[in-house]
Amino acid sequence: MPTFALKLSYDGKPFCGFARQPGMLTVQGELEHALEMLYRRPVQTVCAGRTDSGVHALGQVVSFDLTEDEAGIRRDDALMRSLNALTHDRMSVCEVLHPQEGFSARFDAKAREYRYFIANTSYPPLVMGDFSWQITSPLDIGAMREGASYLIGEHDFKSFCMAVSAVGKPTCRNVISIDIDPVEVMGQQLICIKVVGSSFLHSMVRTIVGTLVAVGRGKRKPEWVGEVLEARRREAAGENAPAQGLIFWEVRY
Amino acid sequence: MPTFALKLSYDGKPFCGFARQPGMLTVQGELEHALEMLYRRPVQTVCAGRTDSGVHALGQVVSFDLTEDEAGIRRDDALMRSLNALTHDRMSVCEVLHPQEGFSARFDAKAREYRYFIANTSYPPLVMGDFSWQITSPLDIGAMREGASYLIGEHDFKSFCMAVSAVGKPTCRNVISIDIDPVEVMGQQLICIKVVGSSFLHSMVRTIVGTLVAVGRGKRKPEWVGEVLEARRREAAGENAPAQGLIFWEVRY
Repeated sequence: MPTFALKLSYDGKPFCGFARQPGMLTVQGELEHALEMLYRRPVQTVCAGRTDSGVHALGQVVSFDLTEDEAGIRRDDALMRSLNALTHDRMSVCEVLHPQEGFSARFDAKAREYRYFIANTSYPPLVMGDFSWQITSPLDIGAMREGASYLIGEHDFKSFCMAVSAVGKPTCRNVISIDIDPVEVMGQQLICIKVVGSSFLHSMVRTIVGTLVAVGRGKRKPEWVGEVLEARRREAAGENAPAQGLIFWEVRY
Repeated sequence: MPTFALKLSYDGKPFCGFARQPGMLTVQGELEHALEMLYRRPVQTVCAGRTDSGVHALGQVVSFDLTEDEAGIRRDDALMRSLNALTHDRMSVCEVLHPQEGFSARFDAKAREYRYFIANTSYPPLVMGDFSWQITSPLDIGAMREGASYLIGEHDFKSFCMAVSAVGKPTCRNVISIDIDPVEVMGQQLICIKVVGSSFLHSMVRTIVGTLVAVGRGKRKPEWVGEVLEARRREAAGENAPAQGLIFWEVRY
């Protein structure tokens, strides 16, 4: 059974998240429906990270198995064209990959990178308007970096996990790095929060960003982030940052 | 009479261009309506470049005069906030400037810069999808650069002007530079065509881009661009490139 992998990008706005749900427009639903049309049987897919409703992706990876016969029907560029023609126009298959047999986009991932964009201006940015969180009050990047330092390494991130999703499940994760830097995109300044980790809990990146923004706004001291981590209760942390500023950037295997 | 200038950005999609037209959503219409609400009289504005329907702007400049009394009512940041609150959410006042009295955003402009973005991929780019022209067949950037070289300097650009707009009007213009380069925007490759000139004819940049793309596709030789210029007939040139890839980037005074 040859294993295939696809690199996907999508604008999160029209989708009710990645994961298939009956009667809802989802990225996985669109993709599996297209694969079923091409191969005339249900094809199950596994993704590197299930993004929530409204979250974007630049480098989502999805894997699935085909039979030898199915794998031989189309060349990669034809498969890509067919899938792009059959799926919603706000999602794109950007690359067809041929990993070793049995590869899992989820379980073989070594690290995942998310980027969160903040427009810290009194007016929305032109091109990034639908891909950023606009915060008009000034943010102290230095304080946010100091706060972020408490989160690096292996910790129990229960405070940063959507409460219902944390019940009875392990909540330890390894955050490899958090970089907070000004970036210029199409002539306009934004703040980019780049979070790399082995894997993430449900809404963990958005809760990290919301918590760091409370520090950046001066509502909390940087050391409060350490207290939030120790509390192991979702209520201890800041609000979830809005989905539209978050991009699932890259998966490393 | 103190003269004010505003730097504006806008997403061209919802607007029927910059110039005010009765009953249509236009950038100038929105801005002048907001100014009229603030100062309780009609305020006439002059812009650096009248962009067509669907064309975006990052650095459009608009000038207008206020009386001493009117000028004293609001601080710059309050004026910016009020105008942004009163106008369409796809346009933004990014800066309030105080040029010398009698300054004209149009007549005092020394040079104008436009940037045109092409996504030369089989799938639309994520963030730049609404700000680029997607061309799936491969483009030869070297040939496009060679073609562009025929347009540098002072020429009669009648072939590059919308025919109805050229009747009985001078059509000589000075193109200072055309740079064609691959650029990365939010993790994806695009081609940027940067055109700088003293001023431009109606739809001139889009006709230049459409003509250069015919060369990039290999349908025409680079020297054909010189022949188009000499023909002094709009029909000699290539098609107009779509408005959505064009951004009025900057004005130099």
